Amino acid sequence: MSWDAWGIPENRRALSVEVESLLRTALGISPHPRADSSQNSVRLTRSRLSVERRHALEAILGAAHVSTEDAVRVHFLGGKSTLDLLARRSGTLQFAPDAVVFPANEEEVHALLRYCSDESIAVVPFGGGTSVVGGVDPVREWFDTVITISTRRMKAMTALDEVSRTATLQAGVTGPEAEQMLASHGLSLGHYPQSFAFASIGGFAATRSSGQASAGYGRFDDMVESMTVVTPIGITVCGRASASAAGPDLRQVFLGSEGTLGIITSVTVRVHPMPECTEYRSWWFPDFVSGSAAFRDLAAMTGRPTVMRLSDEAETAVNGSKDGGCIAVATFEGTRAQVEARAHMADGVVTARGGDVRSPESARRWEHERFDAPYLRDALLDAGALAETLETATSWAALASVRATISSALVGVLTEAGTPPIVMSHISHVYPTGASLYFTVVCATAEDPSTQWRTAKDAATRAMMDLGATLTHHHAVGRDHLPYMKSEVGTVGATLLRAMKVALDPASVLNPGKLIP
Amino acid sequence: MSWDAWGIPENRRALSVEVESLLRTALGISPHPRADSSQNSVRLTRSRLSVERRHALEAILGAAHVSTEDAVRVHFLGGKSTLDLLARRSGTLQFAPDAVVFPANEEEVHALLRYCSDESIAVVPFGGGTSVVGGVDPVREWFDTVITISTRRMKAMTALDEVSRTATLQAGVTGPEAEQMLASHGLSLGHYPQSFAFASIGGFAATRSSGQASAGYGRFDDMVESMTVVTPIGITVCGRASASAAGPDLRQVFLGSEGTLGIITSVTVRVHPMPECTEYRSWWFPDFVSGSAAFRDLAAMTGRPTVMRLSDEAETAVNGSKDGGCIAVATFEGTRAQVEARAHMADGVVTARGGDVRSPESARRWEHERFDAPYLRDALLDAGALAETLETATSWAALASVRATISSALVGVLTEAGTPPIVMSHISHVYPTGASLYFTVVCATAEDPSTQWRTAKDAATRAMMDLGATLTHHHAVGRDHLPYMKSEVGTVGATLLRAMKVALDPASVLNPGKLIP
Repeated sequence: MSWDAWGIPENRRALSVEVESLLRTALGISPHPRADSSQNSVRLTRSRLSVERRHALEAILGAAHVSTEDAVRVHFLGGKSTLDLLARRSGTLQFAPDAVVFPANEEEVHALLRYCSDESIAVVPFGGGTSVVGGVDPVREWFDTVITISTRRMKAMTALDEVSRTATLQAGVTGPEAEQMLASHGLSLGHYPQSFAFASIGGFAATRSSGQASAGYGRFDDMVESMTVVTPIGITVCGRASASAAGPDLRQVFLGSEGTLGIITSVTVRVHPMPECTEYRSWWFPDFVSGSAAFRDLAAMTGRPTVMRLSDEAETAVNGSKDGGCIAVATFEGTRAQVEARAHMADGVVTARGGDVRSPESARRWEHERFDAPYLRDALLDAGALAETLETATSWAALASVRATISSALVGVLTEAGTPPIVMSHISHVYPTGASLYFTVVCATAEDPSTQWRTAKDAATRAMMDLGATLTHHHAVGRDHLPYMKSEVGTVGATLLRAMKVALDPASVLNPGKLIP
Repeated sequence: MSWDAWGIPENRRALSVEVESLLRTALGISPHPRADSSQNSVRLTRSRLSVERRHALEAILGAAHVSTEDAVRVHFLGGKSTLDLLARRSGTLQFAPDAVVFPANEEEVHALLRYCSDESIAVVPFGGGTSVVGGVDPVREWFDTVITISTRRMKAMTALDEVSRTATLQAGVTGPEAEQMLASHGLSLGHYPQSFAFASIGGFAATRSSGQASAGYGRFDDMVESMTVVTPIGITVCGRASASAAGPDLRQVFLGSEGTLGIITSVTVRVHPMPECTEYRSWWFPDFVSGSAAFRDLAAMTGRPTVMRLSDEAETAVNGSKDGGCIAVATFEGTRAQVEARAHMADGVVTARGGDVRSPESARRWEHERFDAPYLRDALLDAGALAETLETATSWAALASVRATISSALVGVLTEAGTPPIVMSHISHVYPTGASLYFTVVCATAEDPSTQWRTAKDAATRAMMDLGATLTHHHAVGRDHLPYMKSEVGTVGATLLRAMKVALDPASVLNPGKLIP
C-alpha cells in the first residue's frame, strides 16, 4: 500500500468528466492536478530506539525482522483516513514508530510484549494499515520509545475443519489471501469490507469489521468461533464452542479491543461453501423513507439478501441516476433454485413498500466498483476537494431522525465555514431491529482542511451521541473517536474498560491513546 | 413454585405404567410412594438480620417489602437441581437467606447495593428460582448476613417499539408474562426454555438461557439489544444499537454474569410478529451419526427449522419408539407458504442423509409435553430413582467423540457405584459450526445420592474439559460448575473475570461463591 494514498498506484484513476463537472457546478471547485509527492521527499522523525533495545529485539526476532529504516517505517505512519492523507500530503515531518518488528508467531509476540512491558516501550499492533480512525498511529504518549508490531509474517491457515466448517487463520492473512486459501477447498469466508484487499484477519477481529455481505454472512464478530490473543500477562484462547453459558463471553472483550488489551494472533472463523451462483437486484424507491421501510422488512425476512445497500436521493443522483428517488442494490448468494426464490420473495417485499424492480445493471456495476471508493477519494483530494465518510447505527424507528440530524449538522458547519458540502448517505448493514447509516461528505477544501473536517465531524458525532446512536458501526474507535467513548459507554462502562486494561496490560504499553476512555 | 419440588402441585403426575416397568426391568427399582413432605415440617436457619439492618432495608423499600418470615424465606432456598431437591427432601436444616427483599425499581436496587456494599452484606439476586447449578443459593461465605433480592415486583413492559420490533421488559417478567404482554400487540419473543413457566427475563439474561426455538429465534443473548444493569458503583445501560464497533461489547460482559457483576433490572429484547402457523415434522434416522449429519446440514440451511431436536437411540427407545434408530422432531414457524417450503426443503436434506419423513405425531406430542420433564424428575425421585441432566456444546466434528466419552464416564462411575444407569442424550440447539449435547441420566438411588451424583457429574465434566467442549451450553455456572471455570477460561480469562468483579463490585458482595474463579 502507498504510504501517502490508498492502495496501489496501478489502480488509481482520474476523475470522470461527470465528477469533474459536478465539482465545478455544485461545489465551485476547479479541479487541479496534484503536485507529485513521493517517498523520497518524505521526512520522518528519527528513530529513538537505543542500541541496547535494538539488540534485545533482535535477540527475540532475529536481526532481519527488526527495522529502523525510513523505507520501512514510512509504511507504518498510521492508517488511511482523510486526516491521515492530508497530513502525509502536507510535507511536514511525519511521526513514525521508532522501529517496526515482524514476529513470526505468538510466542515471539509474547516475548515482545513481556520485553516491552518490562522496558516501558509503547507497542502498536499493525495489520493492513487501513484504519480510518487513527487506530494504528504510533502514539508516543509518555513513552520514550514506540514500536510497531506488524503481523505481516503470520500468514498461514493453521487448521481447517471441513466438517464443522471452521478455519483457523493467522492474524496477518489478508482478505484476498483468506479467500484464496479457502477457495481451494470450495469454501469462502464472505467478509468483504471496503478495506478487503489490504486489511487482515487480526484487524477485522480487533476492530469489529463489517463487510458488504453482512446481511448474508454476518459481521466479522459474528464469524469468530475462537481467538488466540497474546497479552502481556499471558496467551489466552477464548471460545470453546459456538455458544456457551459459561459466564461473560470473553471473545466479545477482545473483539473490538483494537490492540489495547492484547494482540490477536489467530482467529478461528466460520466458513461456508462457495456459493453456486449470485442473483442481482436493483430496486427503485420514490424516496429514502419507503426504501428504508422495505429494508426493514427485508432485514426480518428468512432468506434475506446477502448484500443490501440503499442509497439516499443525493447518493443516487451522484451515481448518475436520472430518475430521482433512491436506488437499492442487492445480491443473493446460494444455490440457483434458492437464490431465485429468495430474490422473488424480496421483490414482493419491495413492491409492497412502493418500490420498483429495475434492471439489475446497477447492482452489477456496484459490485464491479465496490472497492474503488477510496481511490476516488485520493483523486478528489488531488482535485482540491475534501472527501470523507463517517458512520453510525441506530434502530429503525430512529433512523430517519438520526440521518436528518447528522446531515444537518454536517451541512451547517461546513456551510458556515464557507464550503457548503454535498452530503450523501446509505444503509449498507441491516439487522432485524435497526441498520447502519453511512455518510459521504464532499466539499471544497478550506485553508486548513484538517480543522475544517474535525469541526464538521465533531458536530456530526455529538449529534449521534445526543440521539442515542452508536459512535461507530464498523470504523472502530481508535484515536479519533476516543473523546466520545465516555458518552458511548457511560461512567460504569468506562470504569470496566479501564479495569480490563489494567488487568491485561499492567504496564499500559499496548496501543496507547486509543479506545480506552 | 413449590419449595421442595418443581413447579406447581396441580401439574404433578404419577409415573406411567411404561416408566414404572422400565424402572423395574432396566434399573431394578421397585417404585415406592414418597413420604409426604410439606412446608410445615421444614426447618430453616434462623435469620441473622439485625434490627438496625432491618430498619435500614425497610427505610429503602418500605416495611412491606422486607421479609424475614420462614414462610417467605422457604421459597428462596436456592434453585431446582436434583441436588437441591435431594437436600430439600432430606429433612435436614435448610440454609435460608437472612432476609428477602422486594425492590420495585432500579433506584431501589441501587440503594440496596450501596447499602449492602457499605455494610458488607452478601446479596443474592433471585428471579424465577429455576437455576439447576446452584446459581441462587444464599451462600454466606465470610459474610455475617446474606439477603436475597427478588425481582418479582419489577414486572412491567416499560417500552415497546413496534417499528424496530423491540420491547423493554423489567427483570421480573416471567416467560408467559412476556408472551402475554407481547401477544396483545401481535408480537412474540419466542424464548421457550424448559424453565419457561417460572423463569424471568433478568434470569434469562444473567444466565445466557437458550430456548427450544433457538434455531429459529436465537439464544436469549442473541435477542438482547440493550440492558440496564445496577452495580454497586452505578447504574449502566449497555447497547446503543443492534451492532457497534465501539470497542468490546459490554452487553456480553453482563450477559451470563449471574448476578456477580451487577443486577440486571431491565432488558430490551428483539421481538417478532406472532407466527401465522406452525408446520411439524418428525424424522427417523437409522442412527445418531446420520441424524447429526443431517442436523449439521439443516443448521446451515437458509430457512432452517425453528425447533430442532434429535434424540439418540436410548432416548428414542425410552420415548416409546419400537423401530430402533433415532427420532428427530422439528417445527417451522412463519407464514403458511414459507413454512411449507422450508419444511419441504428440510425433508430433502433429511432424506439425503438417509433419514425418513414420518408422521408428525411425535413432534406434536413433544410440543405438548415439552415443559413436563422437570415434573417427571420429581416423580422419579419419589419412586426412588435418581434422575438428573447435564449438557455441553462442541463442534460438529467433535460431537460424536464428546458424546461417547461423556456417556462412558457416566456409565462407568455409576456402574462402579453399583447403580448402572440409563444415559440418554439429544441435540437441541444447533449452530452452523456445532451443537449442544444434552444428557439425561436415570439410575437407582445409592445410600448417599448427592455424593453419587456429584461423583458422576465430576467425571462427565472433566471429560468435557479434556475434550475442549464447553462447561455449559445453557445451564450456566453458578456454584456447581465454579470448580471448572479456570479450565474453561484459562489463567488470563480468570484474571480478566476477577478484574471485572473488583471494578464493578469492590466490596465483593454480589452473589458470592458463584461463577468467578
